[in-house]
Amino acid sequence: RFGEAETEDMVGVVTGLAWTEVGGEILSIESVMLPGKGAVKTTGKLGDVMQESVSAALSYVRSRSITFGIKPTVFEKRDIHVHVPEGATPKDGPSAGIAMATSMVSVLTGIPVRRDIAMTGEITLRGRVLPIGGLKEKLLAALRAGITTVFIPKENEKDLAEIPDNVKKHLQLVPVAHVDDVIAQALVRKPDPIEWVEPPEQPVATAATDSAAGAPLPH
Amino acid sequence: RFGEAETEDMVGVVTGLAWTEVGGEILSIESVMLPGKGAVKTTGKLGDVMQESVSAALSYVRSRSITFGIKPTVFEKRDIHVHVPEGATPKDGPSAGIAMATSMVSVLTGIPVRRDIAMTGEITLRGRVLPIGGLKEKLLAALRAGITTVFIPKENEKDLAEIPDNVKKHLQLVPVAHVDDVIAQALVRKPDPIEWVEPPEQPVATAATDSAAGAPLPH
Amino acid sequence: RFGEAETEDMVGVVTGLAWTEVGGEILSIESVMLPGKGAVKTTGKLGDVMQESVSAALSYVRSRSITFGIKPTVFEKRDIHVHVPEGATPKDGPSAGIAMATSMVSVLTGIPVRRDIAMTGEITLRGRVLPIGGLKEKLLAALRAGITTVFIPKENEKDLAEIPDNVKKHLQLVPVAHVDDVIAQALVRKPDPIEWVEPPEQPVATAATDSAAGAPLPH
Amino acid sequence: RFGEAETEDMVGVVTGLAWTEVGGEILSIESVMLPGKGAVKTTGKLGDVMQESVSAALSYVRSRSITFGIKPTVFEKRDIHVHVPEGATPKDGPSAGIAMATSMVSVLTGIPVRRDIAMTGEITLRGRVLPIGGLKEKLLAALRAGITTVFIPKENEKDLAEIPDNVKKHLQLVPVAHVDDVIAQALVRKPDPIEWVEPPEQPVATAATDSAAGAPLPH
Amino acid sequence: RFGEAETEDMVGVVTGLAWTEVGGEILSIESVMLPGKGAVKTTGKLGDVMQESVSAALSYVRSRSITFGIKPTVFEKRDIHVHVPEGATPKDGPSAGIAMATSMVSVLTGIPVRRDIAMTGEITLRGRVLPIGGLKEKLLAALRAGITTVFIPKENEKDLAEIPDNVKKHLQLVPVAHVDDVIAQALVRKPDPIEWVEPPEQPVATAATDSAAGAPLPH
Amino acid sequence: RFGEAETEDMVGVVTGLAWTEVGGEILSIESVMLPGKGAVKTTGKLGDVMQESVSAALSYVRSRSITFGIKPTVFEKRDIHVHVPEGATPKDGPSAGIAMATSMVSVLTGIPVRRDIAMTGEITLRGRVLPIGGLKEKLLAALRAGITTVFIPKENEKDLAEIPDNVKKHLQLVPVAHVDDVIAQALVRKPDPIEWVEPPEQPVATAATDSAAGAPLPH
Ligand SMILES: [Ca+2]
Ligand SMILES: [Ca+2]
Ligand SMILES: [Ca+2]
Ligand SMILES: [Ca+2]
Ligand SMILES: [Ca+2]
Ligand SMILES: [Ca+2]
Ligand SMILES: [Ca+2]
Ligand SMILES: [Ca+2]
Ligand SMILES: [Ca+2]
Ligand SMILES: [Ca+2]
Ligand SMILES: [Ca+2]
Ligand SMILES: [Ca+2]
Repeated sequence: RFGEAETEDMVGVVTGLAWTEVGGEILSIESVMLPGKGAVKTTGKLGDVMQESVSAALSYVRSRSITFGIKPTVFEKRDIHVHVPEGATPKDGPSAGIAMATSMVSVLTGIPVRRDIAMTGEITLRGRVLPIGGLKEKLLAALRAGITTVFIPKENEKDLAEIPDNVKKHLQLVPVAHVDDVIAQALVRKPDPIEWVEPPEQPVATAATDSAAGAPLPH
Repeated sequence: RFGEAETEDMVGVVTGLAWTEVGGEILSIESVMLPGKGAVKTTGKLGDVMQESVSAALSYVRSRSITFGIKPTVFEKRDIHVHVPEGATPKDGPSAGIAMATSMVSVLTGIPVRRDIAMTGEITLRGRVLPIGGLKEKLLAALRAGITTVFIPKENEKDLAEIPDNVKKHLQLVPVAHVDDVIAQALVRKPDPIEWVEPPEQPVATAATDSAAGAPLPH
Repeated sequence: RFGEAETEDMVGVVTGLAWTEVGGEILSIESVMLPGKGAVKTTGKLGDVMQESVSAALSYVRSRSITFGIKPTVFEKRDIHVHVPEGATPKDGPSAGIAMATSMVSVLTGIPVRRDIAMTGEITLRGRVLPIGGLKEKLLAALRAGITTVFIPKENEKDLAEIPDNVKKHLQLVPVAHVDDVIAQALVRKPDPIEWVEPPEQPVATAATDSAAGAPLPH
Repeated sequence: RFGEAETEDMVGVVTGLAWTEVGGEILSIESVMLPGKGAVKTTGKLGDVMQESVSAALSYVRSRSITFGIKPTVFEKRDIHVHVPEGATPKDGPSAGIAMATSMVSVLTGIPVRRDIAMTGEITLRGRVLPIGGLKEKLLAALRAGITTVFIPKENEKDLAEIPDNVKKHLQLVPVAHVDDVIAQALVRKPDPIEWVEPPEQPVATAATDSAAGAPLPH
Repeated sequence: RFGEAETEDMVGVVTGLAWTEVGGEILSIESVMLPGKGAVKTTGKLGDVMQESVSAALSYVRSRSITFGIKPTVFEKRDIHVHVPEGATPKDGPSAGIAMATSMVSVLTGIPVRRDIAMTGEITLRGRVLPIGGLKEKLLAALRAGITTVFIPKENEKDLAEIPDNVKKHLQLVPVAHVDDVIAQALVRKPDPIEWVEPPEQPVATAATDSAAGAPLPH
Repeated sequence: RFGEAETEDMVGVVTGLAWTEVGGEILSIESVMLPGKGAVKTTGKLGDVMQESVSAALSYVRSRSITFGIKPTVFEKRDIHVHVPEGATPKDGPSAGIAMATSMVSVLTGIPVRRDIAMTGEITLRGRVLPIGGLKEKLLAALRAGITTVFIPKENEKDLAEIPDNVKKHLQLVPVAHVDDVIAQALVRKPDPIEWVEPPEQPVATAATDSAAGAPLPH
């Protein structure tokens, strides 16, 4: 068949949540893997902060790749392209960070993302999930879009008091402090870590006492 | 003979549809393949959004290349140049996305594009076709230009009520949800998928349990 | 002798025609070939549109190089520098496109350009010649400069009614629809095509049925 | 376990101190090591001065790497990504310099940073610590955040008279003149220097008298 | 001796002539050769037009290098740095073109430039010398600076009527139409051309008839 | 010992002199050598003119490296990073040129700079020292900073009449016309030149008569 099956389509596709002055909205975040050298390409009129967010997400995923079962050598042969339709709508802000990381792990492992979930949260280089703004508007948008589960930053739990009851009734809200908790639950199955042994180096350097002998590197 | 035959000329040439405040217009999208490294070059005074659209189209085509019978290794040896005459007229927007993808598949496979068709629709990184604006103006322009078939986004079907009857009578309108459906019909013959087996890697990594033993990559 | 002979000097030098609010003017377009990697360098205060026009001209020439007797491998070892004196005068617009292509074919083949001709016309990536503005002013400038033959876009034939009779009497006007027709007549001799056989590849890929078996490239 | 242990998380994470018109604030500086070529990537909306500060910190660490037990060859295989959350907040100024250097040494040696300390001070290319502004506001922010020890520039000792007594009672203030003193105390253990012998060169050049004989390099 | 002899110093140093609203001025153009890949670096606050002029001068010299006794392979191993003191004064315009070319040939051949000469003239990619403005002011500046010979564009001979007699009496004015005439006279000795035979290529391509047989490059 | 000895610290550190509307000031110029390819990196909020000055200083030092005992091959393996604290203060102008060159020679030879000296002067690509502005203010700043010797441009000797007698009494002023005179006196010992013989080339080219025979490089 020429088109693609729905499940296969969901590899690399994550639903994020945006917040503008006119309300919340659904963001579809798409990643594909391409031959390359570990670089990331972004399209979809992303602002500087969102682009840096993509970069931080990639560095997190890359520095922890074996935890997700991704061989470090894959980044020597593959680039990742992250696109956020609709292409004419400007987007910015750091709150799609955990969605970016999840999309990348999905495309790098080939494990599909659960279709009924959405997520919002800034990511740090260590995978910590930082709080975001516009929680109410984002949750309303998720509800309208038929989402059933939303991952939110643990530090936003204090904002749940302001969320209407019917939203809380129809949406399962999952507070998370670390992006690994998102990835473990948002993919259709949890990635298995691998062991990885770096190829040995040529034995040139040796441990030394403080009074350095020998010929140091000129500086 | 020094010039080129008409059919040969049509490889890589696709008719898109633009929409400005003064009405719709025909856009001729041209691609050629050049020695290179998988990069894309764009000319014709394309705005940022249209350039990102070209980039998304290329990543879609590249990530699915075997579906279109294109060997992945072709991107290690070829660049693509996409040009949209007339060179002095600024152009922008995402709605030429499916035309860009079709032009690329044509030039990469060597299969000509049908001369009597036009198309409009934004493309996502997964090949989904998103709705566009100015459908009426674009169809009128297609009609004036002697086009007989126009591919439009399935999500624009709701706009067909506003299209004058004589337009609908003279143009065959083909609503599409996925760019693969466009490519299958817009080229003079449907591309045949190929099998592709990646060259094997050196066997360094092994599957592991969660409690990772061994020497992990330092982070 | 230290200087250069006149005929040798004419390799790569083409007379284009510019049109500004103060009238038409002669443009001298110069190309030289340098060691490099197939890149093009432009100088002479060229605007964005004229630079894109140079790029389109090069891609056309490169993608059809064997038609002009130019070995594709020359672009692995040579760059082209295109300069348009006078260096302090800003220039822009797409109408020098066919002159750029002719200059490049001349320098790449070593075949001199006829000294008594001028030309104007936008080039597409497929070599089609698109119409230009200011035909009358350009032809007057050509006449003043002692030109005897001018190549003009076929689509500008409709403008010939407005051209004064004495201009049409002293200038041979050659309407052209394709840049190959220009190159065949503007060089002192028509380039001879060559045969070119790409070096064979390693036989990895095989044709397949639609239901793909084997290990596809991960995406 | 899927998440990370707290101590492991602290490798590469340093607490800096920022000062704005609305008071002092805690800055979390994060570094990770990635495959690369000795380049540094920065994210977190860092201004030009802070980015140059990162660059100076890296050059200091790199030029003295054996003092910190870091093999010079690591920079042939690794990049460093420095991120300062929160990603939407602009940050600038040179005063995070010693924190940047400490974060880098931590990530390059794998030695964690003490969690209860903070630091502020500009770094020079020779590791000297230059004075900063806003000392009072920064110390108040450190106190609020539960920090127990703050490294401050020795040249800021003169400003300690203006610091409230209760701040000085609850915070251990460590004036430092050189970043090596910070690194020795801020990591959970002091890095051990290594010996390093550069691979020998081919013996082409020889010492000479002033009246140079032989064939000099043309200039 | 630590400093340099005067004659040696003159290799690569050429006196150009600038013209501003406050009168003419002497420009000292300096070139040095450095290890590199045939690139040119410019410093001295040069505007875009002057930088393009440097680029055109280099392409001329490079494309004709054997005429000047310069082995084409030198550009695979050397860059050229062109500097125009004083560094804080902005400079622009194309009229230093022939001085740039002369400076480059001097540094590439090691032949010193005559100290008592100055020159002004735009250069084309084919070495033609184009006319300049401000001839009178430039000649007065040359006279004040103790210059005895000035190379001027042949097309500026018409302006000599306006030049005061005492200027024409004390300065030898040499009208030139081609930069090769400048180089032959401005260096202390004329460069000797060399023969150069390109290393042979692998014989893949063969001449063909118009009806191309075999497997053409796909386009 | 963890810190550095004072003398070792002085390698690559030179005192320059700046002049602003509020008076003269001391500039500390620092260089370190890093693995690289002969590039120079600058930090410290340097303006365009000061950056070009760094570039000219490097090209001078590099083109004369054997005079300073620096093997040309060091630039194939090392970059230089030049930093001018304080990082938040913008700096510009060409007058630190000779200080930049002295700092580079110091770091490349490993010979420390005398701590009691300062210097001001623009450098040309041939090492000539050009005059600077603000001599009085700069000398007052040097005096305040405890400097005992200042290198000034020979062309500024005419300005010494305006310098207060007590400044001239306490500062040794050394007028210099060439940067080599600065380097010979400002380092704690004069660098020894080396002999350097370029590795021989493959003998392809031969001297020729004017009437070139053989196959010239196509142009
Ligand atoms: Ca979001
Ligand atoms: Ca929308
Ligand atoms: Ca039109
Ligand atoms: Ca369109
Ligand atoms: Ca003119
Ligand atoms: Ca023209
Ligand atoms: Ca905050
Ligand atoms: Ca700070
Ligand atoms: Ca002056
Ligand atoms: Ca001049
Ligand atoms: Ca200060
Ligand atoms: Ca200075």
